[in-house]
Amino acid sequence: MMNILVINGPNLNQLGKRDKNQYGSFTLDDLMEKMIKKFPEVSFEFFQSNYEGAIIDELEKYEAYDGIIINPGAFTHYSYAIRDCIESIPKIIIEVHISNVYNREDFRKESVISPACTGKISGLRDYSYILAVEYIVNN
Amino acid sequence: MMNILVINGPNLNQLGKRDKNQYGSFTLDDLMEKMIKKFPEVSFEFFQSNYEGAIIDELEKYEAYDGIIINPGAFTHYSYAIRDCIESIPKIIIEVHISNVYNREDFRKESVISPACTGKISGLRDYSYILAVEYIVNN
Amino acid sequence: MMNILVINGPNLNQLGKRDKNQYGSFTLDDLMEKMIKKFPEVSFEFFQSNYEGAIIDELEKYEAYDGIIINPGAFTHYSYAIRDCIESIPKIIIEVHISNVYNREDFRKESVISPACTGKISGLRDYSYILAVEYIVNN
Amino acid sequence: MMNILVINGPNLNQLGKRDKNQYGSFTLDDLMEKMIKKFPEVSFEFFQSNYEGAIIDELEKYEAYDGIIINPGAFTHYSYAIRDCIESIPKIIIEVHISNVYNREDFRKESVISPACTGKISGLRDYSYILAVEYIVNN
Amino acid sequence: MMNILVINGPNLNQLGKRDKNQYGSFTLDDLMEKMIKKFPEVSFEFFQSNYEGAIIDELEKYEAYDGIIINPGAFTHYSYAIRDCIESIPKIIIEVHISNVYNREDFRKESVISPACTGKISGLRDYSYILAVEYIVNN
Amino acid sequence: MMNILVINGPNLNQLGKRDKNQYGSFTLDDLMEKMIKKFPEVSFEFFQSNYEGAIIDELEKYEAYDGIIINPGAFTHYSYAIRDCIESIPKIIIEVHISNVYNREDFRKESVISPACTGKISGLRDYSYILAVEYIVNN
Amino acid sequence: MMNILVINGPNLNQLGKRDKNQYGSFTLDDLMEKMIKKFPEVSFEFFQSNYEGAIIDELEKYEAYDGIIINPGAFTHYSYAIRDCIESIPKIIIEVHISNVYNREDFRKESVISPACTGKISGLRDYSYILAVEYIVNN
Amino acid sequence: MMNILVINGPNLNQLGKRDKNQYGSFTLDDLMEKMIKKFPEVSFEFFQSNYEGAIIDELEKYEAYDGIIINPGAFTHYSYAIRDCIESIPKIIIEVHISNVYNREDFRKESVISPACTGKISGLRDYSYILAVEYIVNN
Amino acid sequence: MMNILVINGPNLNQLGKRDKNQYGSFTLDDLMEKMIKKFPEVSFEFFQSNYEGAIIDELEKYEAYDGIIINPGAFTHYSYAIRDCIESIPKIIIEVHISNVYNREDFRKESVISPACTGKISGLRDYSYILAVEYIVNN
Amino acid sequence: MMNILVINGPNLNQLGKRDKNQYGSFTLDDLMEKMIKKFPEVSFEFFQSNYEGAIIDELEKYEAYDGIIINPGAFTHYSYAIRDCIESIPKIIIEVHISNVYNREDFRKESVISPACTGKISGLRDYSYILAVEYIVNN
Amino acid sequence: MMNILVINGPNLNQLGKRDKNQYGSFTLDDLMEKMIKKFPEVSFEFFQSNYEGAIIDELEKYEAYDGIIINPGAFTHYSYAIRDCIESIPKIIIEVHISNVYNREDFRKESVISPACTGKISGLRDYSYILAVEYIVNN
Amino acid sequence: MMNILVINGPNLNQLGKRDKNQYGSFTLDDLMEKMIKKFPEVSFEFFQSNYEGAIIDELEKYEAYDGIIINPGAFTHYSYAIRDCIESIPKIIIEVHISNVYNREDFRKESVISPACTGKISGLRDYSYILAVEYIVNN
Repeated sequence: MMNILVINGPNLNQLGKRDKNQYGSFTLDDLMEKMIKKFPEVSFEFFQSNYEGAIIDELEKYEAYDGIIINPGAFTHYSYAIRDCIESIPKIIIEVHISNVYNREDFRKESVISPACTGKISGLRDYSYILAVEYIVNN
Repeated sequence: MMNILVINGPNLNQLGKRDKNQYGSFTLDDLMEKMIKKFPEVSFEFFQSNYEGAIIDELEKYEAYDGIIINPGAFTHYSYAIRDCIESIPKIIIEVHISNVYNREDFRKESVISPACTGKISGLRDYSYILAVEYIVNN
Repeated sequence: MMNILVINGPNLNQLGKRDKNQYGSFTLDDLMEKMIKKFPEVSFEFFQSNYEGAIIDELEKYEAYDGIIINPGAFTHYSYAIRDCIESIPKIIIEVHISNVYNREDFRKESVISPACTGKISGLRDYSYILAVEYIVNN
Repeated sequence: MMNILVINGPNLNQLGKRDKNQYGSFTLDDLMEKMIKKFPEVSFEFFQSNYEGAIIDELEKYEAYDGIIINPGAFTHYSYAIRDCIESIPKIIIEVHISNVYNREDFRKESVISPACTGKISGLRDYSYILAVEYIVNN
Repeated sequence: MMNILVINGPNLNQLGKRDKNQYGSFTLDDLMEKMIKKFPEVSFEFFQSNYEGAIIDELEKYEAYDGIIINPGAFTHYSYAIRDCIESIPKIIIEVHISNVYNREDFRKESVISPACTGKISGLRDYSYILAVEYIVNN
Repeated sequence: MMNILVINGPNLNQLGKRDKNQYGSFTLDDLMEKMIKKFPEVSFEFFQSNYEGAIIDELEKYEAYDGIIINPGAFTHYSYAIRDCIESIPKIIIEVHISNVYNREDFRKESVISPACTGKISGLRDYSYILAVEYIVNN
Repeated sequence: MMNILVINGPNLNQLGKRDKNQYGSFTLDDLMEKMIKKFPEVSFEFFQSNYEGAIIDELEKYEAYDGIIINPGAFTHYSYAIRDCIESIPKIIIEVHISNVYNREDFRKESVISPACTGKISGLRDYSYILAVEYIVNN
Repeated sequence: MMNILVINGPNLNQLGKRDKNQYGSFTLDDLMEKMIKKFPEVSFEFFQSNYEGAIIDELEKYEAYDGIIINPGAFTHYSYAIRDCIESIPKIIIEVHISNVYNREDFRKESVISPACTGKISGLRDYSYILAVEYIVNN
Repeated sequence: MMNILVINGPNLNQLGKRDKNQYGSFTLDDLMEKMIKKFPEVSFEFFQSNYEGAIIDELEKYEAYDGIIINPGAFTHYSYAIRDCIESIPKIIIEVHISNVYNREDFRKESVISPACTGKISGLRDYSYILAVEYIVNN
Repeated sequence: MMNILVINGPNLNQLGKRDKNQYGSFTLDDLMEKMIKKFPEVSFEFFQSNYEGAIIDELEKYEAYDGIIINPGAFTHYSYAIRDCIESIPKIIIEVHISNVYNREDFRKESVISPACTGKISGLRDYSYILAVEYIVNN
Repeated sequence: MMNILVINGPNLNQLGKRDKNQYGSFTLDDLMEKMIKKFPEVSFEFFQSNYEGAIIDELEKYEAYDGIIINPGAFTHYSYAIRDCIESIPKIIIEVHISNVYNREDFRKESVISPACTGKISGLRDYSYILAVEYIVNN
Repeated sequence: MMNILVINGPNLNQLGKRDKNQYGSFTLDDLMEKMIKKFPEVSFEFFQSNYEGAIIDELEKYEAYDGIIINPGAFTHYSYAIRDCIESIPKIIIEVHISNVYNREDFRKESVISPACTGKISGLRDYSYILAVEYIVNN
């Protein structure tokens, strides 16, 4: 059985309450349920935190997983600490974003984390996560 | 009775010890006491933390309050995570600063948080907080 | 009795006609009336002009006042002449803005005047002025 | 009969004396005469001033006109006060320039006023004004 | 009889289908018809292409025309090749834009082509073209 | 049956010959074959060109398709013409990149096209295309 | 007898009251007196205004003078209108500054006016004016 | 016998008509003739196009040549597509310019193509080409 | 006996596993042991955390120490909160880095923390720490 | 008797041969002679060198002089070494330039040396030197 | 016996006379004496020059030494020539600074030399040199 | 007989020892010999120095030569003094570089010297010099 760690950064516990134009109306629970249903052959570890340090602590447990999916939320734009951590992890790590970060405010266009990841999927709502799993499962 | 949450960011627990030219000689305790005395009709929740994640966790309890006053300290300049959180809170939120951030170092002039707040009061020492309460009470 | 000079810069005589989303529907007369009613113990001098030079001439009469409130309008963004003038006035001077200048066009975020003022209140509609008076009266 | 206000900013009273390579040899009087002759069915109000404040005062009388033509001269590059004023006027307002401002000094390329106008005509000498009238008359 | 070449750059064949807020609801055919009707004394050559190279090839036939009107579409912002071509053509060449490019995205404010043209007309919808013809006919 | 247009921009016909570290050793033919085999229920139209204009011409036939996948190659970084075209197409359009454009040269980080697309998938080699199809099929 | 126009811009009427570290303790009257005493053979016209427009109006009377000395005060940094005016005056015009503008705030280092003047003298207190007269008298 | 491909980009077919100060009075035919005469032992393929796509198509035939000389004209400044193409060609490729691009407009100083070429020769008129051939023949 | 606090920021617990080219193969334990052995007369407090807030909390206990050594890891580049904290501590504080941060990625060159420290030692592997102790012991 | 050191930087030994539009036709010898004749009561030490190091060596002999005049030539724009040297000299030091450096190339507008000097005189040809002497003699 | 070359750049011969706040009151002789006394087992070659060329000449003798310590003074900020030289020297080379260059003027923060050195020690007064020796002796 | 001055700037005396990937393995002596052998009809003056001042002194002897070849080494990037010198020399001057400066560090892309030279040849190893001679001999 394949193990995948799914990390959601700050404010993503508010999915469904926050600006629905950008993020849709599904909640984090809805998302997790959908992933589990879609990939019964995968064992998911879901982790959400508003703490940068907690996310790094979690990432450091990477050896238990076959791949990692991370939506760093606003940490995307300044957390060089998360970037450094990812850079040293020899696993597939995919950065995902729910909204199309490129047609919103300017600061959302810059990701300090992307250079350290395997790839990036953005703008496809909950499918950003689904496709990331698909990739890990097949590669 | 009106409920107001007052959040103080990193290092503000050091008020009174830190550079007195910029911050005056009053402590965080002095400030809280003064606010309570000045507004006996308001129920204050005071919260201080050096952790960005803890501040976001606290902000997410916004439903219990009629308004929020936040002095983000140095998070003002880079915490897009706090900004995202504030942006989704449908309450009056006022950003306050004790010193006049505009005649200090260049990096203090940029606030990533201001666009998400209702308004901003800076440079008026402890009165930055007092006036913020006044606004919430009257609006 | 306390004397306060209230200066309104270019276009602020159009309050109530101009973009109501940003500036509300109250007029400059409404504002002045509200201030007078709220602070009967203060003697206000109200001054509005579209001329930068006229505002400087007015500011130079500072000795007659206990404090000054200035909404520099668009001069906020480029009038180094007003800044120089304020810098040499040994009184409390508070810069006020009706709208939240931080979530509008980029050029509205830069104030060349703030470094020379005591403090700044923005985004609180007519209350930006009210709180400024409150500060002067109490300090 | 149609009423059009034609505003000329600083130094444009010097037309004909100033750098003829850029501005041609016609004077402001020649220009006004030509406009009047070409459009006998239009009633023009011509206004020239070296004062930014005076131009704003004039613009605020917009209700008397069907359209406005403004050559802001050097105010083009920094007068956010004129821009704010234009932005709140619900009439056709056309920015005109005599010379091709795009192949001169760099600072002439930036106009802070253009975003607030209906349109812009530049580089066509006196015809920049003539065509602006034509547009207002036909729209 | 006067000969005028009218060049429309990429995507302008989509006029009428594309964002109507910015471009109005008239089609390229409507525009051409209106120009022909308005100036029966002018012989127009209309040319539209999504290819930068094709536009340059067309411009190089400039000797057959008394003047050129060009709406470079998005090439406005980066085609130094079109600019170089225009720079060497000893005819009146007027750059036109349908929408007010100055109150849209930032990249639309920079034109690498303007310095090489005689003049520029923008924001006046189909009248941007009409007035350009008017200028060529009269100069 | 679902119709999907797959556009590959300049130099992508060289896949398999070009820098294999970045692009892998599969050719464009391999890629097309793999897509067809993986999605027998989809009818693909494959289009490759080194001409910006040809890509725009192709995009303008969008009405025949249920979704579009585009790897704009180097046009990613400067073709505002392609961006404008995509912006007016009311279909799902996904931008894909084979390599992780974020850990290569600086100029590869900026995409002028992303703001106009539905979403973006990068760094996942041939799977960037596969997952894009998956998204269109399911949404 | 030689005629020299001496223009002092905004806030220079406050000389002697304003920051004495930068500007010394002499007043504008002291300065004028000293100039008159030192150059009895020169007829001076002294003009001070806080209005940009008034300074331009004054400059336009240039034909009556053999040379002009201007301390533009804060207009130095943004008045392209004064620059345009100076540019068209065929007389010796010297820009003077009392303080060394180069070791103060950054914005004081940029002068938009210098390119249009004959020369510039700064940092030499009242002698900046004295030497400017000396130059005009001898050239 | 040695085979060399000589590519000239947009507007270079206008050599001899275009600004003679920068480009001299020789035509593209003169240049080709001179090269042939000077190197009778070399077989030249000359190619000129105003189309970026056509130049890439031509470059992709690189296997037939011992070396390539390219004057990208204005594509020098923005064609990342040509750069990508050159980067993958394992031959000597020399970028040439007729004029000294470094003492002209600012945008001419930046070449996005140079990093991908073997070397660069500029400012030496027709000799920029002659010397490039010389290099290929000897290396 | 002298007390020194040694703080290691995010990811430094991974020393020895992370990129050995940059950081060498020693672990954090190796480093601590070496310091203790080399300076038997010093009492060290070692602290490592991936949490910015935890590091500030630790720094606020500064009164117990004679000096502080801090390797802020990636916080170096954006933690104004740590900078503010250090700025108010009246002790010797030395910033250390294991690798030469100046010949790596651009973002590693900027330290927001350096201005608040006594000094900085970088690029000398474990000796960066050793020499920092040496300095504190001798000053 | 007063002692003044006059330093001329690189290329100033070419005065009279170099671009006469900018520098006039007088030679360095002419200039020295004129200064000596005009100020018989001053003892001048003239020094010219193309070596930055030689100029610093010379400046370090400052104790023998009452004041220093320096035309740093092109070192103006980058010699932080000369700036550091001047900064530590407790004498009047005046930076002079023959031409108006503000209406030439952009790089000539920035002086790294000005912040360290007493004052600056530019654009007044040989009189830039004469007036500098005048200032030193009188202050 | 170990050989170490110690290079001091421009103005460092003025140590003890120059701004004592930044550089302390010790002279270059004091510093050399202290180093010799502290490391009797090391043979030092001390070299100071205000000439960039002389420093490069000296560096090129690197084969005689086991390590090099260089305080490039103001050359730190612009001498790419010294950087190039250091880059090709296969020895330990440590850049030292007496003052904390990070809390002074902005230009002092940039070192073009650091990327070519082994490491860097700054802000520790004379100990910056002492620790550099210590490092070379132990590595 | 033709006279050519060949100037090599700082560190070029280290050719053959320095980074061979960039500069090849030939020495400066090899290069000189090759040039002499290839052009027996030319009389060469070879000059190398690490001193900017010495290079300027040498350039000022230009009257003895028919042309000058200069490889300014690292002075390329900041020596405005050498640029000023070259600008006033009425001879053919060709800037040469051994390596392709455009695909190395960013600072190597900017040459302050190019605008003053006749032309530039880079990236062709020793042939950069050979071709420069060829040009001078034939023009």
